Amino acid sequence: MLLQGKRTWVYPKPPVIIATGTVVGPDEGEGPLASDFDLVHPDLEVGQPSWEKSERVLLEQASDIALQHAKLSKDKLSFFVGGDLMNQIISNSFAARTLGAPYLGVFGACSTSMESLAVASLMVASGAGEYVMAGTCSHNCTAEKQFRYPTEYGSQKPPTAQYTVTGAGASIVSGEGDGPVITAATVGKIMDLGIKDPFNMGAAMAPAAVDTIQGHFQDTGREPGYYDLIVTGDLAGVGHPIATEMLRRNGVPIEQTIFHDCGLMIYDVDKQKVQAGGSGCACSAVVTYGHLLKRIRKGELKRILVVATGALLSPLSYQQGESIPCIAHAVAIEAQNSNRQGGAVQ
Amino acid sequence: MLLQGKRTWVYPKPPVIIATGTVVGPDEGEGPLASDFDLVHPDLEVGQPSWEKSERVLLEQASDIALQHAKLSKDKLSFFVGGDLMNQIISNSFAARTLGAPYLGVFGACSTSMESLAVASLMVASGAGEYVMAGTCSHNCTAEKQFRYPTEYGSQKPPTAQYTVTGAGASIVSGEGDGPVITAATVGKIMDLGIKDPFNMGAAMAPAAVDTIQGHFQDTGREPGYYDLIVTGDLAGVGHPIATEMLRRNGVPIEQTIFHDCGLMIYDVDKQKVQAGGSGCACSAVVTYGHLLKRIRKGELKRILVVATGALLSPLSYQQGESIPCIAHAVAIEAQNSNRQGGAVQ
Repeated sequence: MLLQGKRTWVYPKPPVIIATGTVVGPDEGEGPLASDFDLVHPDLEVGQPSWEKSERVLLEQASDIALQHAKLSKDKLSFFVGGDLMNQIISNSFAARTLGAPYLGVFGACSTSMESLAVASLMVASGAGEYVMAGTCSHNCTAEKQFRYPTEYGSQKPPTAQYTVTGAGASIVSGEGDGPVITAATVGKIMDLGIKDPFNMGAAMAPAAVDTIQGHFQDTGREPGYYDLIVTGDLAGVGHPIATEMLRRNGVPIEQTIFHDCGLMIYDVDKQKVQAGGSGCACSAVVTYGHLLKRIRKGELKRILVVATGALLSPLSYQQGESIPCIAHAVAIEAQNSNRQGGAVQ
Repeated sequence: MLLQGKRTWVYPKPPVIIATGTVVGPDEGEGPLASDFDLVHPDLEVGQPSWEKSERVLLEQASDIALQHAKLSKDKLSFFVGGDLMNQIISNSFAARTLGAPYLGVFGACSTSMESLAVASLMVASGAGEYVMAGTCSHNCTAEKQFRYPTEYGSQKPPTAQYTVTGAGASIVSGEGDGPVITAATVGKIMDLGIKDPFNMGAAMAPAAVDTIQGHFQDTGREPGYYDLIVTGDLAGVGHPIATEMLRRNGVPIEQTIFHDCGLMIYDVDKQKVQAGGSGCACSAVVTYGHLLKRIRKGELKRILVVATGALLSPLSYQQGESIPCIAHAVAIEAQNSNRQGGAVQ
């Protein structure tokens, strides 16, 4: 039985993230984590005639890099699990055509990064896949065009808005190998506190992050101190303080030194014009696969919990006056030699 | 190891479909399978002010019915796995909000019916979930509006076009219980032979169905005669003969008496104005969960293979001149007392 508690999978033999690939655009290349990404593009076009084609190329490059790092040919992949923000997740479907691997499309908006990694880890842990790739991507200009206004229109944004990360992250999970391991994954529930403003996603998503973090602790018996770092996906400057305060009031306080947000880490929020911070499927994907896993490999971090947050609205649901249903999926990643109680003991 | 061959999961202890719920609209209620559905709506509105809200209600009703049939309260669900054709799969995300269960959103266009069932079966078989619901839905007026033209516009359609099924299907999968069992699931690869016409989905999807059927036989060692019935999801009048011919040429002929298509079964194609036949996520879902599982329970069928087909285009990818990437996911469902070689032996 992998199911522990109500909605967490805990792996007796934790699957290994044997390789990752990260690709970002120019704004991310000017941020504080630039040197942690495998490929930084100097422009948003990436040589393509449309923003959507640019986004797809980012994901194709990230998966190619992950395969190179793993020294695997693409025909060795058992499955590719991925999704993105685009209608009908076309970036992933077209990238899956290029990869040629058996493909499961998933969708959790910006939480897709950890949803795909959770599903990939389950497939490996249960013997349902040997090498499973998880991938996701986003592009600032495709997301703005689809969810709000085309960037060419030049509309102003309120300070609560967030800046969609241009980039893609892919990882390869396997039962054996060197690399950080996945010890647990917690599946999110829909939380919807009635926020209807697509320019204030952070506030909308904060309760989902809180619910998943508390669910993770309840299911596993772990406490915040078990982790060296707990990061939310893209709550940014508005949502992250709300989540912090909600956790405190709920009796699960997390010290600020170990509680961070990928949307606040990827940019220099004070200097770069990114409103409240980063967002998008690629935000938590590239920060986790690029920056955080490198810190685990260097020994700077032993155990992290990545809580990717997603706002599951569509432009049409918003136009019809619906509130924004939100979700967060969490994956616990640890150094392979980590051996505190309850951790990986490989 | 559940993985057998390249992309098929075979379950030593097959998960059980303990209950289903099916809801359809008026056109499906005038078709030959009407009496097999749990609830037939006399109109397309279902008391809602928008087509999108109608679609969501269909899924909420189907999941409620499945829970009633299983005599389960919704808090007993370990997970809900679902998706639909709507941008950002909003029907499922809003229905998941109502259900309150931990939720994994998936997307495979019309193949979502079997993608969600495959993932649900894997979760149960691996001990990652106790009761897992798989669900999907479609609505004629939402799909036409989103992918082609609003129905209110009254545009004419070519005879190769298909008619999106209005309906929803939900199933509950568990490790124990009475009901048909899932013995295997085969994950599809993207197939794209260059067709760009969203009014000819059947032809575009036929190669994906063929690839998955052949992959299923290669992986499992089964032959077409193992099954009493092999049904494709929604190839309809244009695509199904193409798939039949491709299989014959590839040396895997399937007798016409055991090879059918849900899109041809759900309507009286000669009398009802449905062009080449039915399509949509709900097409294979309601035919499988309503009609085919009833035939298995009655003993009329012992073993079936449901090969749900999906066209993974978006309106935007079509407008940008892209061809249509297609996929098919297959699930093998058998009577619990079925005991031919390689079958379930519970």
